[in-house]
Amino acid sequence: MSKGKVLLVLYEGGKHAEEQEKLLGCIENELGIRNFIEEQGYELVTTIDKDPEPTSTVDRELKDAEIVITTPFFPAYISRNRIAEAPNLKLCVTAGVGSDHVDLEAANERKITVTEVTGSNVVSVAEHVMATILVLIRNYNGGHQQAINGEWDIAGVAKNEYDLEDKIISTVGAGRIGYRVLERLVAFNPKKLLYYDYQELPAEAINRLNEASKLFNGRGDIVQRVEKLEDMVAQSDVVTINCPLHKDSRGLFNKKLISHMKDGAYLVNTARGAICVAEDVAEAVKSGKLAGYGGDVWDKQPAPKDHPWRTMDNKDHVGNAMTVHISGTSLDAQKRYAQGVKNILNSYFSKKFDYRPQDIIVQNGSYATRAYGQKK
Amino acid sequence: MSKGKVLLVLYEGGKHAEEQEKLLGCIENELGIRNFIEEQGYELVTTIDKDPEPTSTVDRELKDAEIVITTPFFPAYISRNRIAEAPNLKLCVTAGVGSDHVDLEAANERKITVTEVTGSNVVSVAEHVMATILVLIRNYNGGHQQAINGEWDIAGVAKNEYDLEDKIISTVGAGRIGYRVLERLVAFNPKKLLYYDYQELPAEAINRLNEASKLFNGRGDIVQRVEKLEDMVAQSDVVTINCPLHKDSRGLFNKKLISHMKDGAYLVNTARGAICVAEDVAEAVKSGKLAGYGGDVWDKQPAPKDHPWRTMDNKDHVGNAMTVHISGTSLDAQKRYAQGVKNILNSYFSKKFDYRPQDIIVQNGSYATRAYGQKK
Repeated sequence: MSKGKVLLVLYEGGKHAEEQEKLLGCIENELGIRNFIEEQGYELVTTIDKDPEPTSTVDRELKDAEIVITTPFFPAYISRNRIAEAPNLKLCVTAGVGSDHVDLEAANERKITVTEVTGSNVVSVAEHVMATILVLIRNYNGGHQQAINGEWDIAGVAKNEYDLEDKIISTVGAGRIGYRVLERLVAFNPKKLLYYDYQELPAEAINRLNEASKLFNGRGDIVQRVEKLEDMVAQSDVVTINCPLHKDSRGLFNKKLISHMKDGAYLVNTARGAICVAEDVAEAVKSGKLAGYGGDVWDKQPAPKDHPWRTMDNKDHVGNAMTVHISGTSLDAQKRYAQGVKNILNSYFSKKFDYRPQDIIVQNGSYATRAYGQKK
Repeated sequence: MSKGKVLLVLYEGGKHAEEQEKLLGCIENELGIRNFIEEQGYELVTTIDKDPEPTSTVDRELKDAEIVITTPFFPAYISRNRIAEAPNLKLCVTAGVGSDHVDLEAANERKITVTEVTGSNVVSVAEHVMATILVLIRNYNGGHQQAINGEWDIAGVAKNEYDLEDKIISTVGAGRIGYRVLERLVAFNPKKLLYYDYQELPAEAINRLNEASKLFNGRGDIVQRVEKLEDMVAQSDVVTINCPLHKDSRGLFNKKLISHMKDGAYLVNTARGAICVAEDVAEAVKSGKLAGYGGDVWDKQPAPKDHPWRTMDNKDHVGNAMTVHISGTSLDAQKRYAQGVKNILNSYFSKKFDYRPQDIIVQNGSYATRAYGQKK
């Protein structure tokens, strides 16, 4: 008789899982934690069948699960109803970062602990932000399409190609990912780095960026906090979104806010798809108000085949730098979050519950940090 | 009667030139220097007809040209025969950087001055190197193709996706572009930055990189010169080529040197296509010896439709990050090299010949710098 059930919901690896053993984050390789869980006397059930609620395998297995492990790349939504139907549920673990697929209010009412492996992919996502910014501003898509399609029309690419140097670049959110993006931008000699956040960056963090800019670029006073989001986007050549999804950030980038942006600016979103209004972004890319939009997050995942961001583009077909949701699941990140999930489980199984503070989203009925938009 | 003829050979802009007035580097917008040249009493002849030798318009117009302005993005090859057929030729100007499309030995024998607008696109090219490295290592192509083709197979992308963090990255050449690439790599927290160059980097330049790495990453001793190219590539996860094309670098990356590289390494070439043996690279990408190859330079430009690098790829179709030759011709770079060409012409027309030293490739029969492989 097992002590309890652990339910694991990950994306499918299929033939890729056989080819690449480092692909820990897929259902076949189970984060590499099956033996560890079974050695603790617990039962591990794994599935990819997470939709639709309430008839999926996830719904059936949740009924007597004590722990559920999900991932933002293929998110099983742990809704209020699913929590209500899971009387034994005590711990939700996100294999990765970002727990907005869990109803945190409902979890708090039941004193369920929700955790994630904080930092496991902040570097990976920050790198994807930089890749997307460079792909857009340097018109990599335009140059690559010509290369593989037998063409050679330099002007046709160059007309949409700028340098990142001397541009004004801003981040919505200067937390673990936003700040790492700012660090990686400094050596590109930006004119200004702006940030919009509910809290001021510590002086030491600002000084580090300015010091590095002095070292590389000879100008040391480039970092600036902007109180009003409209003011920040109005002066930015590139805006990158690095804040969690919550009731105040849902639909933040709509037609109105985009209208405040510079004509021909670039918008990058690797945070959560629903922070942008899909149709408003698609319209802005089509009209050229936005010279380009890119990122790896969609308001519904997996994104439906007819999602507007799959086909949105401008007249030169160089305004769309979308990818599927991959930034935080590089093979290096998977190794980190697989180990992180194991550490969280260890804290739970040992009954010490000595989770890393930064990994706790909600516990004992309250939010551990303000990052998820709570007022308390 | 004009004082003399200036021949200008640029790529065609066509409809793009009408749409984008910042596109100075195309034949229609003539670097914005027609009035300036005509005010000096010189005649300006512009053409895109540069091939084949010896029957093109370039051949005809060179016969009595005093100055020829060409660009590496659409290079008119100023060969020994063409120089022999151009008795009045005194000055060659490259609108951009990289004068290997001019026979420097033949120019020296005629004491023709060859100049380029040094630095005009070193930042642009360094940015394109970073874009290409990130596109390859993060498997942007794989993620983007799924996004625009209605697919969602995260494992299919993640299995070829790594972080740049903690990798060993090396540059062949640590000159103006190679060093700027190293600067932009530091904040990505590489394990080591290696360089191979005929001269040691100044201590101050090495200290700046190490100091920035200490600031960002807490580790300050990451930069290392490697004497033997085979040793450097053998330990590198990513190799970026940033050296001029000359007799010692032509065909440098062939089957043998590639065999010294790590299995699954990435090779980026934004220097000159002929530094790599095309078929050897294509074979290495196909077999997976190289996890990916990218860049914007080809051994023949415009690249023929059947050039192997247009279609080379691995079994997952994510190993090719080629673009047409665009990195140094962003709209920001065009503004700089248009101004640079004007300054060089001004030095010539004024008879002061006070070119910026760094712009001179050959003058009065000798090389101005060793960068072009000369032994003298």
